[in-house]
Amino acid sequence: MSHYTTLDWQITDRVLTLTLNRPAQLNAFTTEMAEELIDAYTRASDDDAVGAVVVTGAGRAFCAGMDLSVGGNVFGLDENLDPSLAELDARWDDEDIKHRVRDTGGRVSLAVYECKKPVIAAINGAAVGIGATMTLPMDIRLASDKARIGFVFGRIGIVPEACSTWFLPRLVGLQQALDWVYSADILTPEQALQGRLLKAVVPHEQLLDEAHRLAHRFIDGRSPVSIALMRQMLMRNPALPHPRDAHAIESLAMLHTSRHDGKEGVASFNEKRAPQYTQKASADMPKIYPWW
Amino acid sequence: MSHYTTLDWQITDRVLTLTLNRPAQLNAFTTEMAEELIDAYTRASDDDAVGAVVVTGAGRAFCAGMDLSVGGNVFGLDENLDPSLAELDARWDDEDIKHRVRDTGGRVSLAVYECKKPVIAAINGAAVGIGATMTLPMDIRLASDKARIGFVFGRIGIVPEACSTWFLPRLVGLQQALDWVYSADILTPEQALQGRLLKAVVPHEQLLDEAHRLAHRFIDGRSPVSIALMRQMLMRNPALPHPRDAHAIESLAMLHTSRHDGKEGVASFNEKRAPQYTQKASADMPKIYPWW
Amino acid sequence: MSHYTTLDWQITDRVLTLTLNRPAQLNAFTTEMAEELIDAYTRASDDDAVGAVVVTGAGRAFCAGMDLSVGGNVFGLDENLDPSLAELDARWDDEDIKHRVRDTGGRVSLAVYECKKPVIAAINGAAVGIGATMTLPMDIRLASDKARIGFVFGRIGIVPEACSTWFLPRLVGLQQALDWVYSADILTPEQALQGRLLKAVVPHEQLLDEAHRLAHRFIDGRSPVSIALMRQMLMRNPALPHPRDAHAIESLAMLHTSRHDGKEGVASFNEKRAPQYTQKASADMPKIYPWW
Repeated sequence: MSHYTTLDWQITDRVLTLTLNRPAQLNAFTTEMAEELIDAYTRASDDDAVGAVVVTGAGRAFCAGMDLSVGGNVFGLDENLDPSLAELDARWDDEDIKHRVRDTGGRVSLAVYECKKPVIAAINGAAVGIGATMTLPMDIRLASDKARIGFVFGRIGIVPEACSTWFLPRLVGLQQALDWVYSADILTPEQALQGRLLKAVVPHEQLLDEAHRLAHRFIDGRSPVSIALMRQMLMRNPALPHPRDAHAIESLAMLHTSRHDGKEGVASFNEKRAPQYTQKASADMPKIYPWW
Repeated sequence: MSHYTTLDWQITDRVLTLTLNRPAQLNAFTTEMAEELIDAYTRASDDDAVGAVVVTGAGRAFCAGMDLSVGGNVFGLDENLDPSLAELDARWDDEDIKHRVRDTGGRVSLAVYECKKPVIAAINGAAVGIGATMTLPMDIRLASDKARIGFVFGRIGIVPEACSTWFLPRLVGLQQALDWVYSADILTPEQALQGRLLKAVVPHEQLLDEAHRLAHRFIDGRSPVSIALMRQMLMRNPALPHPRDAHAIESLAMLHTSRHDGKEGVASFNEKRAPQYTQKASADMPKIYPWW
Repeated sequence: MSHYTTLDWQITDRVLTLTLNRPAQLNAFTTEMAEELIDAYTRASDDDAVGAVVVTGAGRAFCAGMDLSVGGNVFGLDENLDPSLAELDARWDDEDIKHRVRDTGGRVSLAVYECKKPVIAAINGAAVGIGATMTLPMDIRLASDKARIGFVFGRIGIVPEACSTWFLPRLVGLQQALDWVYSADILTPEQALQGRLLKAVVPHEQLLDEAHRLAHRFIDGRSPVSIALMRQMLMRNPALPHPRDAHAIESLAMLHTSRHDGKEGVASFNEKRAPQYTQKASADMPKIYPWW
């Protein structure tokens, strides 16, 4: 049960449905929602009752962007001009400044990135600004035929955030990323699918069912430790300088899994029966994790 | 007005059209053209009269490659065998050698990469060798239905240049890049579009209009500082080792823009009017730029 | 002629056909096959009689994965629990442990990665587990309409290997890679083509001919040194942090080739005749190679 103000937390059959829940405000993003999302992803990562996460929006929007109606500190940066611009310009490379200046959307994205569970976006309506970029560190994006997606930062003189400048070109290629960010267009689901941002477009009323069906295909009958290691390796290893760096990590992960749940996996395969995995993502990750 | 010999420089309504202008030689690339291109991109980057750049070719070709008719030092490397091959092999890792041995196409590509303005290729005809690779660091590639594109280096026993081994796999994927470079095929526009090198293929007579229309969609009513930061972040951040590295840069860029042009952006959005941005890419980039 | 037990080695007209040759076991992968593959790729890399490599399977499968029937040490890791799990957890970052713990599939992939010749997968049937991941460091993947491809590691509680966490997202994008690895689906050739893993799907009986035809398009009338440098630059340079790093390497490679085989390439082009290249990949690589 959810103790959140801006989110709904619902676990059914090992799939957590995390619903952005400010429907009257089209689920517009606030600093409170950011803190609650970070808390929720961190909990989901370590809660063995959660096998996968589906993220969607209450009502007709997914997330209409930063809540501009709250005025002033809309981007979650410090209101009292701390650091001042002069201080920022003079000392931007100090660790102290970097520690104080952190985009809230980026903090949420890093929590998704660190999660041990697959995260599926079920984009049910408008996903604009942070509503679009918050889906990029998720594993899979499904959209309803009513979805609209926009990287609209340029329209109001700011820049993309939430680690989107790292994720978007990796997902859709550099030319497509530049095109969408410069144009700041509101994309139809078909355009986003064509650009390979989405895995699929689904009839609106079937979106959540399809997201849950996919989550179950990913986790049912699987080892949570195997899933967590696969997620972290596919997210992180392509950024390593040489394939031998991935080789070193894969070798250690393979040794660990093949002596634990992988033994049961091979035995069940040879005996033509369903596997009974025992290791938990909360407690049984190899000590070598996180190795990055 | 242009003071160049090999280029035409024409600004109309904040869009610079840079035309490779050796039509009798099919705009074949020379060291003079390289120096003029570097000068032009550097000027365009800092000239506030330029919002975006469209690059095209005079006459029926875009650029038919290195001008092989000039003989000898066709690749722009030093004619007098300086460094000698023996010296090169013995001391290739010395900074001094590296400083003396620089592919001219690569120097042009780095100037494009550093530019603060979006650069759109309008490929109007043959784009072969350096004519193809010079478009890779540009943001968007449009081609006329008369275009032909070829990474033909292997045909004459040399190697791809102009930083193309960095850009091409990022744009089209590793398998497609290897295939095109090994085969050295002359690609039709449809093949290049299918391989995701191009954003679109346009009827020949509409190519320049379409390129200008796209440039205006990118820059009209936008903050030049926001555009410059978006370009540099999308080009550079995906190469960083971890999304938190992009997060640090995005946070600083967001703080800067949200206290300058972004204030006007949000105000104009709330007041449902067109924004009036005041910051200039020439003078008002955050002191933190370039931070890489 | 082949001296291998698990492979067939056949050179015809400068194309080496390397056939996984345990048809009664569906060419299932063993540690012996791993050692023979490493030997074969290393030989092919330095044998001037080999211009390109085509890899296929004998009988109806390409490679049905690790041979699980051999029991125990199926993943090629040490059988006697050396290192022990306790030692592994305590000392995983020691060079000594890393040296002892190496996935055999990864060692094969690194041998493909280092090869100076283009490597083409001709996937003639089931390619599952290591049968799928062993194709990722190859240059081009062709599949017969009877092929089936599966990244099935999650089904038995283990993790992807053979450097696949480095290659797969680079080939097909992050979302597609996560989807295939989580679902562990057996893909049809059409699905793999749509996901851009394959260059093409070919009628079964034409697969080998098509692979050979492609190999000849890559190597006939070409400089082996030029090919080797192109392969290594396209594989490695996109992982460098900045395009100027690729520029430095391209400049040295261009200088070398333009003073050797490139001279003949330009001369033959100007004289409208076939080039006669003389440099060999075995002996005439620039001393600057390998520079990474």
